[in-house]
Amino acid sequence: MNTAPDLIVSQWFNSDAALSLDDLRGKVVVIEAFQMLCPGCILHGIPLAQSVQCAFPPEKLAVIGLHAVFEHHSAMTPTSLQAFLHEFRVTFPVGVDTAGPDAIPLTMAAYGLRGTPSLLLIDQNGNLRAHHFGQVSELLLGSQIGALLAGTETPRT
Amino acid sequence: MNTAPDLIVSQWFNSDAALSLDDLRGKVVVIEAFQMLCPGCILHGIPLAQSVQCAFPPEKLAVIGLHAVFEHHSAMTPTSLQAFLHEFRVTFPVGVDTAGPDAIPLTMAAYGLRGTPSLLLIDQNGNLRAHHFGQVSELLLGSQIGALLAGTETPRT
Amino acid sequence: MNTAPDLIVSQWFNSDAALSLDDLRGKVVVIEAFQMLCPGCILHGIPLAQSVQCAFPPEKLAVIGLHAVFEHHSAMTPTSLQAFLHEFRVTFPVGVDTAGPDAIPLTMAAYGLRGTPSLLLIDQNGNLRAHHFGQVSELLLGSQIGALLAGTETPRT
Amino acid sequence: MNTAPDLIVSQWFNSDAALSLDDLRGKVVVIEAFQMLCPGCILHGIPLAQSVQCAFPPEKLAVIGLHAVFEHHSAMTPTSLQAFLHEFRVTFPVGVDTAGPDAIPLTMAAYGLRGTPSLLLIDQNGNLRAHHFGQVSELLLGSQIGALLAGTETPRT
Repeated sequence: MNTAPDLIVSQWFNSDAALSLDDLRGKVVVIEAFQMLCPGCILHGIPLAQSVQCAFPPEKLAVIGLHAVFEHHSAMTPTSLQAFLHEFRVTFPVGVDTAGPDAIPLTMAAYGLRGTPSLLLIDQNGNLRAHHFGQVSELLLGSQIGALLAGTETPRT
Repeated sequence: MNTAPDLIVSQWFNSDAALSLDDLRGKVVVIEAFQMLCPGCILHGIPLAQSVQCAFPPEKLAVIGLHAVFEHHSAMTPTSLQAFLHEFRVTFPVGVDTAGPDAIPLTMAAYGLRGTPSLLLIDQNGNLRAHHFGQVSELLLGSQIGALLAGTETPRT
Repeated sequence: MNTAPDLIVSQWFNSDAALSLDDLRGKVVVIEAFQMLCPGCILHGIPLAQSVQCAFPPEKLAVIGLHAVFEHHSAMTPTSLQAFLHEFRVTFPVGVDTAGPDAIPLTMAAYGLRGTPSLLLIDQNGNLRAHHFGQVSELLLGSQIGALLAGTETPRT
Repeated sequence: MNTAPDLIVSQWFNSDAALSLDDLRGKVVVIEAFQMLCPGCILHGIPLAQSVQCAFPPEKLAVIGLHAVFEHHSAMTPTSLQAFLHEFRVTFPVGVDTAGPDAIPLTMAAYGLRGTPSLLLIDQNGNLRAHHFGQVSELLLGSQIGALLAGTETPRT
């Protein structure tokens, strides 16, 4: 298993402090990588992340958004993102992926994301366990989350 | 945990032989209890059971339908059910719940089902682990299935 | 323009009396031909007919169902249809298309229906104005109905 | 009937020239007033306008978008709008409603729009015939369009 690269974020919304995967050890972490003007993100990715946020207790699972802008950079600024999050009622923390030397931002490059939406599933020990691109089956994602949560609920002795 | 009552079935479709929960030990079993003229079953219950059938390997999880008719008995005969299963492309085994002394059929009574659709989740040891009535969240059901499957995939030593 | 053939119906539901297209002159008539075990009818045809029934005033437009059974005849009897209409909250009149010498019932044959769902649009003078097979665009159907209704609302002098 | 106020637009997209309602006399005109970060516009308003564009011939009906920004002005600039139109495959002409002395832009004020999405229906003579706010029934909108188109197709003699 691979340790998930940490998030390289230039600005956070919906969070008082910067978040780090290290600080989230002990929880399952779902990272929803999106762009605010990506139709698949608006129609599928963001609503799925909101459903995950509702379905599982926050002490066991954390949902984090990553605004991974790799096109139309001047159209999807933090100012526009802030209005987007307000209008679409996104309440989970969202980090702005840090711009890199080319169009691809740094966290997106570190994870090798193919585009948006992408969903990353990280276990309680910080290992990357699933990497989905595009529309995700809720049954499948639920079963992956359930398997990780079951691991902590029934510790092996 | 409670051992799931066995199915009391008068006729099977989509199966050459009668099925018993005992014969399915070692697999997770999802029982979809439905009536062919129940709108919630047609719109949600049956499609969900079909999605579960597609999402998980048959050697680990079995989907079974239970036609639990408790109203309009003369309208939902086995003859009508057979055409329904053909038209709605239901390919998992479906048992007809055996008529009882009153309107409620025997398996429905044994499980205390409140109506249709109802979804029952049984673990690999034959224990009833979840009992859902009405529309079920795919994320939640997926997580319950994933937890049961994880139990077998990572044996504790 | 063609005069619409009259309905050849063996039994009516949701109507105290037999209905005839002649009696409906002066109204636009929408005929929804369906089978109770046809998935496309349940998912699209019946809900569309119910939406049309809600959207237009009954003194200007009448919705009529035609149960045109051409397959699984023993599975879709009037007894089963009655339960279906109750469970799916169908309140417009529904006529059972009369069985013919072969599998195709008589009204279905007279209109040359290709299958179910089919939607027939008849103007205030009893002429057949549109014949749709399968899923119908609400915008398109609405515009066809609107054109017919406009004809009566703004009489030409 | 009221003559529809003309559009007061500061910039056009998807059009080589500025558009005027006067130039569109002879066609039915559908104006979709939206904001690019309005969920109801993305989920309902824009797709409806695209369906109208597809359903009716361009020589009889014109669809025009109006970007009527009355909140989050710095988040919904023309630069962001241009990327939005590209990503959501909007191909009909879109005018940017001209900023006014307060938050409400000028065309929005002239029409008395209550918010977004709003849909305005203008007949072939430039009269405002319908003004919808929020989600619109396709059957109802279709019937209104059909009534206007029928008026031109069957000239009165």
